[in-house]
Amino acid sequence: MSNYPTIEQIRAASRKIEPLIHKTAVLTCKSIDQICQARLFFKCENFQKVGAFKARGAVNALFSLQEKELNQGVATHSSGNHAAAVAYAAGCRNTKAYVVMPDNASPIKIAAVREYGAEIIYCKPTQQAREAALGEVVERTGAVFIHPYNDYRVITGQATAALELLEQVSALDAIIAPVGGGGLLSGTALTVSALNPKIVVYGAEPAGADDAFRSMQAGQIIPIEKPDTIADGLRTSLGELTFPIIRKHVSAIITVTDDAIINAMRLVWERMKIIIEPSSAVALAVLLEERASIKGKSIGLIISGGNVNLDNLPWQR
Amino acid sequence: MSNYPTIEQIRAASRKIEPLIHKTAVLTCKSIDQICQARLFFKCENFQKVGAFKARGAVNALFSLQEKELNQGVATHSSGNHAAAVAYAAGCRNTKAYVVMPDNASPIKIAAVREYGAEIIYCKPTQQAREAALGEVVERTGAVFIHPYNDYRVITGQATAALELLEQVSALDAIIAPVGGGGLLSGTALTVSALNPKIVVYGAEPAGADDAFRSMQAGQIIPIEKPDTIADGLRTSLGELTFPIIRKHVSAIITVTDDAIINAMRLVWERMKIIIEPSSAVALAVLLEERASIKGKSIGLIISGGNVNLDNLPWQR
Repeated sequence: MSNYPTIEQIRAASRKIEPLIHKTAVLTCKSIDQICQARLFFKCENFQKVGAFKARGAVNALFSLQEKELNQGVATHSSGNHAAAVAYAAGCRNTKAYVVMPDNASPIKIAAVREYGAEIIYCKPTQQAREAALGEVVERTGAVFIHPYNDYRVITGQATAALELLEQVSALDAIIAPVGGGGLLSGTALTVSALNPKIVVYGAEPAGADDAFRSMQAGQIIPIEKPDTIADGLRTSLGELTFPIIRKHVSAIITVTDDAIINAMRLVWERMKIIIEPSSAVALAVLLEERASIKGKSIGLIISGGNVNLDNLPWQR
Repeated sequence: MSNYPTIEQIRAASRKIEPLIHKTAVLTCKSIDQICQARLFFKCENFQKVGAFKARGAVNALFSLQEKELNQGVATHSSGNHAAAVAYAAGCRNTKAYVVMPDNASPIKIAAVREYGAEIIYCKPTQQAREAALGEVVERTGAVFIHPYNDYRVITGQATAALELLEQVSALDAIIAPVGGGGLLSGTALTVSALNPKIVVYGAEPAGADDAFRSMQAGQIIPIEKPDTIADGLRTSLGELTFPIIRKHVSAIITVTDDAIINAMRLVWERMKIIIEPSSAVALAVLLEERASIKGKSIGLIISGGNVNLDNLPWQR
C-alpha cells in the first residue's frame, strides 16, 4: 500500500487553492501543430500567479497547515519560482516567509520575492551553503520548511494543473511535463493515472541535467552532480518522494539538448506570442526533435512558467 | 448623410471573417490594475492570425470582392503587418498577392509574407518609391489594390475587434486603441458609438508621429513628415476616410513618448507573459503616464499585434 496522494486529495487541493490561483488557459497553435504533425495543447502555467505552476504547490502546502503551525512562519531555499511561490502563499495565509537565496540570484527574482513580502537570507551559491543557511533560519525562527518538491502537499498542489488540463481538453493521447525535482511530473502522473491511465505520461529533461533519465535506467535515484543547462528550473535532482511515483506512472524520460530547448522556446515566442521560460520549452523540444513517436496524436504540454530575464535572452548569448 | 460603415455591416463582416480569424482572448492582470488603479481589459490581437488585427481588415476586404475581380490578384505596399495580412487573406481566397516592400524591411517580416505565398516586389524605402512600385505592379498585373486603412472594407473588418470586445466584457467606461493610419481606431469608434455611445473612445499615439493629435487640433489632416518612433505600426498618417470618423466619434488623441511606450511594453511582457509589439503598448503607456483620468474605471485596451524582432528588443538598444 502506497501513501501516494490520491485523486480525492488532488480534487480537494484544487478546490482549496482555487480562490488564490488562476485556472490557466489551454492554448493551441496551428503552425506548430503543422510542424509537429500532431495536435498540441499548451497548459499555460506561465500565466499562473507568480508566473509558474509553483504557486499551486506552495498555496496547497501553506493552506494544509494548521494556523498554529504557522505562528513562526515558513521557510524555504530556492533561487527561482518556488521562492516567489512560497512568498506569495505566505502573504495569502497571513504568515511570514523566510527565503534563502544564493547571493548570485538574478536581481529580478530577488525583487519579485521581496515584493511578495518575504524576508530574504543570502548565502553562497552552493547546495551546502543553502542547506546550512536554511537550517539556521529554521532553528532561529521556528519556521516550517516548505520543500520545493519532496513534500506530498506540494506534489498534490502541482497535480492540480493536470486535473484542470484533463477537464479542459478531452481525448488526449499523451501528456509531457518537464522534470527537475519531479514535483510537477509526479503530480501530473498521479492525476493522469487515476483519471485516465490510457494517457501516456512523459517527462522531458535537459540532457545537461539528466538525473531523472539516469535514475529511471538505474532503478534508483542518481543525483546530478554538476547540472549544465539553460533550463534553470530543471537543475535539481529527483527526491525520495517524487522518484517512486515517476518510476511507477511515467512511461519514459526523454532528454533534449540546450540548443533544442532554445529553438523550441523561440518558436513559441514567435508563433504563439507568449513568454515561456527555458524550462517550459523542454516538452516542445522533445516533439520538435522527434524524440517521441507522436504523429497524428493529441498531446498536452505543461508550460511550467514564464519568468525570464528580458535583458539576456538565450538566443542572444 | 454619411456613408460610414454601419453596425449591420460590421456584424456581417464579423460573421464573414469568422472562419478565418481568431476570436481573440481578453486578458486581465491584477498587478497592472493596481499600478493603474483601474480595471483593464486587454483585447489580445497579438494572438490574431498573422500576429495582428490587420488580418480582420484584409480578410474582410478580400471576401467582399467578387471572384471575377480577383482574377488578377490583389496588391498592396507595406513593410509590416498589413503585408502579411493581405498575403494570408489572398491565400484563403485562392488568389495571388503582390506585396511591395522596402528593401530595408526586416528579414523576419519578409519571410512571413513569403511564407503566406505572396510575391514580393522590392523598392527603395521611401513613400514615393513605394507608391510608384505599387502603381507599376497594378498596371502590369491588373491586381486590385488593398489599401492598409483608407478603405471602408478594411475599416469594417478592423471594427470587428471592438465588436468582440463589447460582447466579451460588459460595462466598459472607455476603450483606447492605438492610431497610425486610423483603420483600427475609426473601426473601433464606429462599433462603440453604435452599440454604446456612453463608452469614451481614445486614440493613443506616439509623440514622434503625432499627426492624428495635430489633425484633431487643426480640424484637417496634417500628415506627419518625418515620423520618429519605435512604434513601427504607427508611423503612417490618417487618411481621408479614417479622419472624419475619428473626428466625429473619438473623444481625444493622447500622445506618449517612446520611453513611456517601451516601459509599458516591457511591463506587459514581465507581468502578463505575452509578447506585444511597441505599437500595442501605446494605449497602456497613456494610462501609466496618467495622461487620461481613469482611476477606478473599466478600460478596454486593444492590443494591436505581437510581431517583434526578438534579436533586437527596444530596451536593449
